[in-house]
Amino acid sequence: MRVLAFLDGTLGDPAQPYVRVDNTGVLRGDGVFETVLVVDGKPRELGPHLDRLARSAALLDLPEPDLEAWERAVQTVIDNWRGPSEIAVKLVYTRGAEGDPDVEPLCYALGMEIDEKIKRARAEGIAAVTLDRGFGPDIAERAPWLLLGAKTLSYAVNMAALREAERRGAQDVIFTATDGSVLEGPTSTVLMAKGRTLYTPPPNIGILPGTTQRSVFRAAQKAGWTVKSEPISADELVSADGVFLASSVRKVTRVHTLNGKPLADSRDIHAELCEAYEAQYA
Amino acid sequence: MRVLAFLDGTLGDPAQPYVRVDNTGVLRGDGVFETVLVVDGKPRELGPHLDRLARSAALLDLPEPDLEAWERAVQTVIDNWRGPSEIAVKLVYTRGAEGDPDVEPLCYALGMEIDEKIKRARAEGIAAVTLDRGFGPDIAERAPWLLLGAKTLSYAVNMAALREAERRGAQDVIFTATDGSVLEGPTSTVLMAKGRTLYTPPPNIGILPGTTQRSVFRAAQKAGWTVKSEPISADELVSADGVFLASSVRKVTRVHTLNGKPLADSRDIHAELCEAYEAQYA
Repeated sequence: MRVLAFLDGTLGDPAQPYVRVDNTGVLRGDGVFETVLVVDGKPRELGPHLDRLARSAALLDLPEPDLEAWERAVQTVIDNWRGPSEIAVKLVYTRGAEGDPDVEPLCYALGMEIDEKIKRARAEGIAAVTLDRGFGPDIAERAPWLLLGAKTLSYAVNMAALREAERRGAQDVIFTATDGSVLEGPTSTVLMAKGRTLYTPPPNIGILPGTTQRSVFRAAQKAGWTVKSEPISADELVSADGVFLASSVRKVTRVHTLNGKPLADSRDIHAELCEAYEAQYA
Repeated sequence: MRVLAFLDGTLGDPAQPYVRVDNTGVLRGDGVFETVLVVDGKPRELGPHLDRLARSAALLDLPEPDLEAWERAVQTVIDNWRGPSEIAVKLVYTRGAEGDPDVEPLCYALGMEIDEKIKRARAEGIAAVTLDRGFGPDIAERAPWLLLGAKTLSYAVNMAALREAERRGAQDVIFTATDGSVLEGPTSTVLMAKGRTLYTPPPNIGILPGTTQRSVFRAAQKAGWTVKSEPISADELVSADGVFLASSVRKVTRVHTLNGKPLADSRDIHAELCEAYEAQYA
């Protein structure tokens, strides 16, 4: 089941081509995206997702997105969905056509089912590996052209990292900076629990501010947790009470094994955080 | 004038869409490409371009490309071209469709005219700026998942760097490593002349091996130059006798200004290198 909606409110057939071969999204990965989770017809954190889409677009010097039109496109996907209760809606915004400034940006919302692997990971947890992202933690502010705070369509490295994880017998990756500090997953934010404190690395070290991380932090705080956005060293993960990857579609996924070594049993913390997170949308 | 050819020998209409909205090229910049220059019906360095396409594909775990089919697609573009004497033929190879392994990789060759800006740059030279790429020179070998030796479709950073150059009043970029050594341009290889020696940075520092650079080195060597592939520090560029950016479509383009400061007048060296390079294809 897939539903494709354009910003003018029309529907498309996802099995048909709509993208030109000279689209900058294809030729250059030059565009931005978001993935929004919809549960029982209700999009989660749509406002923060749209805000981040606008921030990403600004970082790439793309025309300011019409957020109301994007919101309507998401609603069109929801209104026409006849599949399972959960939808992953991708918002895709590419610059236009290479060498042809007259071609308008291409924008669409594509509703897809949640991958079985992701659902299994939510329930059972995952093994992850740390991989060097090659950057120092101070680079993002010094070199904005590296687009480290933007969610761009240029995800070849993120995909290659996931394949490397698979080769190492794991399902996901935690990127580290050259000084060993924790960055993010290829498509997720890293959370760490120590006692009753929940940590995540600060966005200014060159990672994407997480919409789901923010939601989990808000929920955890209400449930009595202290939440901190501060640098985490990869070594700390090993002795933490819990390590989690957060993203729209994977929600809060437990990391049970890191670089082949089992982490502390965090099933109780995981259950508590998931309950708090879900309660917000009940 | 544009000509689109697929690997089965058929032609397409470049103004029509052929790419699905879930294509991994669009959604993830997950694929590889090459740009081949064709002059008077003859492709330049087609063998090295196809070899590099195959190497890039291997680094991304893509199925091995059928190089004979790619060669035929390039010839189909040439046979159907009715435009100016020079063509930039893009070879594009994307993985397939996100979450649908049954969709075959998408492969095509797209012939386009050479941009006027590029032709002007060839003749008049350009101003360039150095921009930090954020990586150390030793990262490529340590972290192959960063795909630094692959020509991927994930070029959002390369495009952002070119926009940053424009903001600084320049037309192109020379990326530097965190230790100040010269890497490459966003879409070119850096050459430096000192006396009768031509230098380029070695590929193992995390740059793409240049097809045009190799061709220019071969030609220069025949013309009595010494050629060296060794680390260059950005400081050395300032005192060099000539700095050039080489790529298929820009050929050898002279950098006359770096970070706002004029470089040594390299017009004679440029003329000599261009003549030697062109003589190979006469």
